[in-house]
Amino acid sequence: MMKVKKNKMKEIVYTEKELAELIGGELKGEPDRRIKNVSAVSENRPDTITFAENPDYFHEAEKSNVTCVIVSMEVEKSNKDIIRVKNPRSAYAKIASLFAPEPLRKAGIHQTAVIDNTAQIGNNVSIHPHVVIEEDVVIADNVILAAGVFIGKGVKISKNTIIHANVVIEYNTLIGSNVIIHAGTVIGSDGYGFVTEDEKHIKIPQLGKVIIEDEVEIGANVTVDRGTSAATIIHRGTKIDNLVQVAHNVEIGEDNLLVAQTGIAGSTKLGKSVTLAGQTGVVGHLELEDNTIVASKSLLSKNTNAGVFYSGIPAQEHKKELRLQAASRKVPELLKRIKKLEREIEKINNK
Amino acid sequence: MMKVKKNKMKEIVYTEKELAELIGGELKGEPDRRIKNVSAVSENRPDTITFAENPDYFHEAEKSNVTCVIVSMEVEKSNKDIIRVKNPRSAYAKIASLFAPEPLRKAGIHQTAVIDNTAQIGNNVSIHPHVVIEEDVVIADNVILAAGVFIGKGVKISKNTIIHANVVIEYNTLIGSNVIIHAGTVIGSDGYGFVTEDEKHIKIPQLGKVIIEDEVEIGANVTVDRGTSAATIIHRGTKIDNLVQVAHNVEIGEDNLLVAQTGIAGSTKLGKSVTLAGQTGVVGHLELEDNTIVASKSLLSKNTNAGVFYSGIPAQEHKKELRLQAASRKVPELLKRIKKLEREIEKINNK
Amino acid sequence: MMKVKKNKMKEIVYTEKELAELIGGELKGEPDRRIKNVSAVSENRPDTITFAENPDYFHEAEKSNVTCVIVSMEVEKSNKDIIRVKNPRSAYAKIASLFAPEPLRKAGIHQTAVIDNTAQIGNNVSIHPHVVIEEDVVIADNVILAAGVFIGKGVKISKNTIIHANVVIEYNTLIGSNVIIHAGTVIGSDGYGFVTEDEKHIKIPQLGKVIIEDEVEIGANVTVDRGTSAATIIHRGTKIDNLVQVAHNVEIGEDNLLVAQTGIAGSTKLGKSVTLAGQTGVVGHLELEDNTIVASKSLLSKNTNAGVFYSGIPAQEHKKELRLQAASRKVPELLKRIKKLEREIEKINNK
Repeated sequence: MMKVKKNKMKEIVYTEKELAELIGGELKGEPDRRIKNVSAVSENRPDTITFAENPDYFHEAEKSNVTCVIVSMEVEKSNKDIIRVKNPRSAYAKIASLFAPEPLRKAGIHQTAVIDNTAQIGNNVSIHPHVVIEEDVVIADNVILAAGVFIGKGVKISKNTIIHANVVIEYNTLIGSNVIIHAGTVIGSDGYGFVTEDEKHIKIPQLGKVIIEDEVEIGANVTVDRGTSAATIIHRGTKIDNLVQVAHNVEIGEDNLLVAQTGIAGSTKLGKSVTLAGQTGVVGHLELEDNTIVASKSLLSKNTNAGVFYSGIPAQEHKKELRLQAASRKVPELLKRIKKLEREIEKINNK
Repeated sequence: MMKVKKNKMKEIVYTEKELAELIGGELKGEPDRRIKNVSAVSENRPDTITFAENPDYFHEAEKSNVTCVIVSMEVEKSNKDIIRVKNPRSAYAKIASLFAPEPLRKAGIHQTAVIDNTAQIGNNVSIHPHVVIEEDVVIADNVILAAGVFIGKGVKISKNTIIHANVVIEYNTLIGSNVIIHAGTVIGSDGYGFVTEDEKHIKIPQLGKVIIEDEVEIGANVTVDRGTSAATIIHRGTKIDNLVQVAHNVEIGEDNLLVAQTGIAGSTKLGKSVTLAGQTGVVGHLELEDNTIVASKSLLSKNTNAGVFYSGIPAQEHKKELRLQAASRKVPELLKRIKKLEREIEKINNK
Repeated sequence: MMKVKKNKMKEIVYTEKELAELIGGELKGEPDRRIKNVSAVSENRPDTITFAENPDYFHEAEKSNVTCVIVSMEVEKSNKDIIRVKNPRSAYAKIASLFAPEPLRKAGIHQTAVIDNTAQIGNNVSIHPHVVIEEDVVIADNVILAAGVFIGKGVKISKNTIIHANVVIEYNTLIGSNVIIHAGTVIGSDGYGFVTEDEKHIKIPQLGKVIIEDEVEIGANVTVDRGTSAATIIHRGTKIDNLVQVAHNVEIGEDNLLVAQTGIAGSTKLGKSVTLAGQTGVVGHLELEDNTIVASKSLLSKNTNAGVFYSGIPAQEHKKELRLQAASRKVPELLKRIKKLEREIEKINNK
């Protein structure tokens, strides 16, 4: 059986002083007061720390039972204990990570895992029940493979990466370090490539791979297809939400945000720091420049310019789209005005 | 090996009298005639019972080989056996449930299931091969966990709930009784929360949970994210179709219908009996009042009023959207009329 | 343990002459030159064969390190070895299939698979770890069931079909030969059918099945619901991309292409050779005639005519939609022209 670190979900406690030091903030409060978790103000829980980004949230926090509030430098004093920082939200994220449970971190290899004897397995890995690891796989130190994960032939996974339950990683995929892949996701399925002859669709074998760089996070039930002959690539730091589709030969730049149910068609290239809001569609063979932003449910069918915000179906610059929408709402009124004009002209002509 | 109730899929037979009593209907037919299944009229199968909601369907049923027809009170007699009820469709649903096979109900725990010894398992559960149950889990009576299901630490599942194959329930999720979750669905994946500093996206730990109340049904390959610090909640009786995305901190009221490929962004609250048709998108931090209805492929970007029907991208009241669409179809004609007016004016001015 | 054909991923080599014969092409080059893989021109890899469909791609290929290029009959000579054929892309597809690795083909039944003793298993099947096969299942020759696959009671799978990891096939599903189903997909989940009484949604049992004919390919994390009482059917040769939803009682004709994230609502019938581009929605109870084409992100809400191209939300004939879009972009200008006309009329009337 698996070695289980039984202490993993026991109570975690920090003093306010320790937390202030961690985030480089100025504590105005009781240094030794003990904090046992983070919370949202609406939960109204004592012994917790929260954050307030604006005066409204701060006043609500002051009235609540939370013990300590992370605030911006504009706040100078409070009846609550406060920690003053430049960016309360990122300070909160750092503190919250201290209290985050890691129920899947259980160093050891479960006896029901099926691991090919050519696989190389690092130190301190957590390989859960019913995991399957095929030939020539390399799993680095501290990797977590949750229950039912399939790791295909020749896959390489770098250190500290966490792969949640029932994820499928098809053969030859390369995954960087500190990557998180949520449950049910499929990496390296065949791209959708066919050639049609006499109305029959003949499969074009998909021989490429998928490369996922360091610090990438991928949501649940996502699909990332392997390249046709080269690779589908997701560069460092990109964060992908649930149920997103990434087609073959797509290249996604660093630090992108791809929100839920977005789909990117084949061979499209995204620059750095691109944001695609939920349910966006992007057609194939496009180039999206750095810092492109696309609004929810848009259909992007043309290349984009750096830093520009697009929306609509088909998408255009958001400013133009808004003007168009505003104008289109006036069409019923236009109809009336034109009718009136026509009558006026008739009257004039009949004079 | 698993104890298998071998009689589960043997022939099921009821008399017309028994069926009429079950649904509180009036039988006009042969009380002892035997019915062996439900069917659609188009299948034309003898020894079955079907239902007819309107005269067209009823005439078709009368000409078919089905043995018995559930009809509304308006139908007084027929050459077929009939059962008269107020609501033929719901009466049919009740009878169909008698004939529904339950291939996954096999009381026993399969020897390949991996169950932590802190887990509490109720009576008459069906725990299929390769199920994994982590620490401190509670599984109530009559629950079915199909093959390959993962139940994370601290999860609680109430009685009679059915969880289909390869579903993943992440830690601390609470699931009510008589819930059905279809295959491949992921409950409790991390919400999509990041804070961006110097173009890098820092993960905000997702420490909340998911609560799914009684009588909820969730389709296949759905994703429901855990709350950031509080809970994502799906209230009693709500029915969710396949490939739907429910983001962190969302609260879905009782008796909602969320049709396939719909996505709901973070922190949005839905009232009771809301209907979102297929491929709807709902942006974050909204409030949808009771009985809101949204048409397929709409993008809801504002709060809604109770009982109102919305459509469009962005969505507005459906009546307005229809008027707008009708008007927009007239724009090509408007162009011509304006051109004509311009010429007329020119003529007048040139006189 | 599983019998593994260790030679499966060793080097594959063909001569140019062998390849030219396979595709019925005319070789202009060195017949005995050895080709070790296919490639994309951009990879610039020696010892590989690629294809060029137009002069631009061909000139690029001529300058690259690839060894041999499949070209159309218009190309007569080159400094590279060439194989002249009518359709370079389909010739390439055939050659690429020679080099395609089959990492999942491992004849044998893994000892961790759980197979009911009523199941009939053909010759030369590859049944991977943690597969579950229920009662009365029939698996024909050469079928591959990858790790974690669930095959429900009464399912029949014909020869040469490949089912990737963690796919769920619910009871009574019928699957043809030479079918490919990618990872995470769910076939035979309950259709979304409820009858509402006093605001409560009562489940209509879904008693039908799913039928998938020969040569069908289905992507990753797709959902195909079982029929209410009859069957959901996908006819021969249809290719379905990732994350597509097929609702209950849908019938999809032969040789359809359904691109990623498309959804088809209940009881809709598609003819032959229909193409639905990505993120299309199709409402229920429609009939789509042969060779219908629908553009990305459209919402089809009416029956279609054979061979017609539709787009828009709601979709109409693409030509009309384009005219409407062009006209709608002129509305802001129309507003100005109408204002001007109104002033002119006022002037005339004030004379």
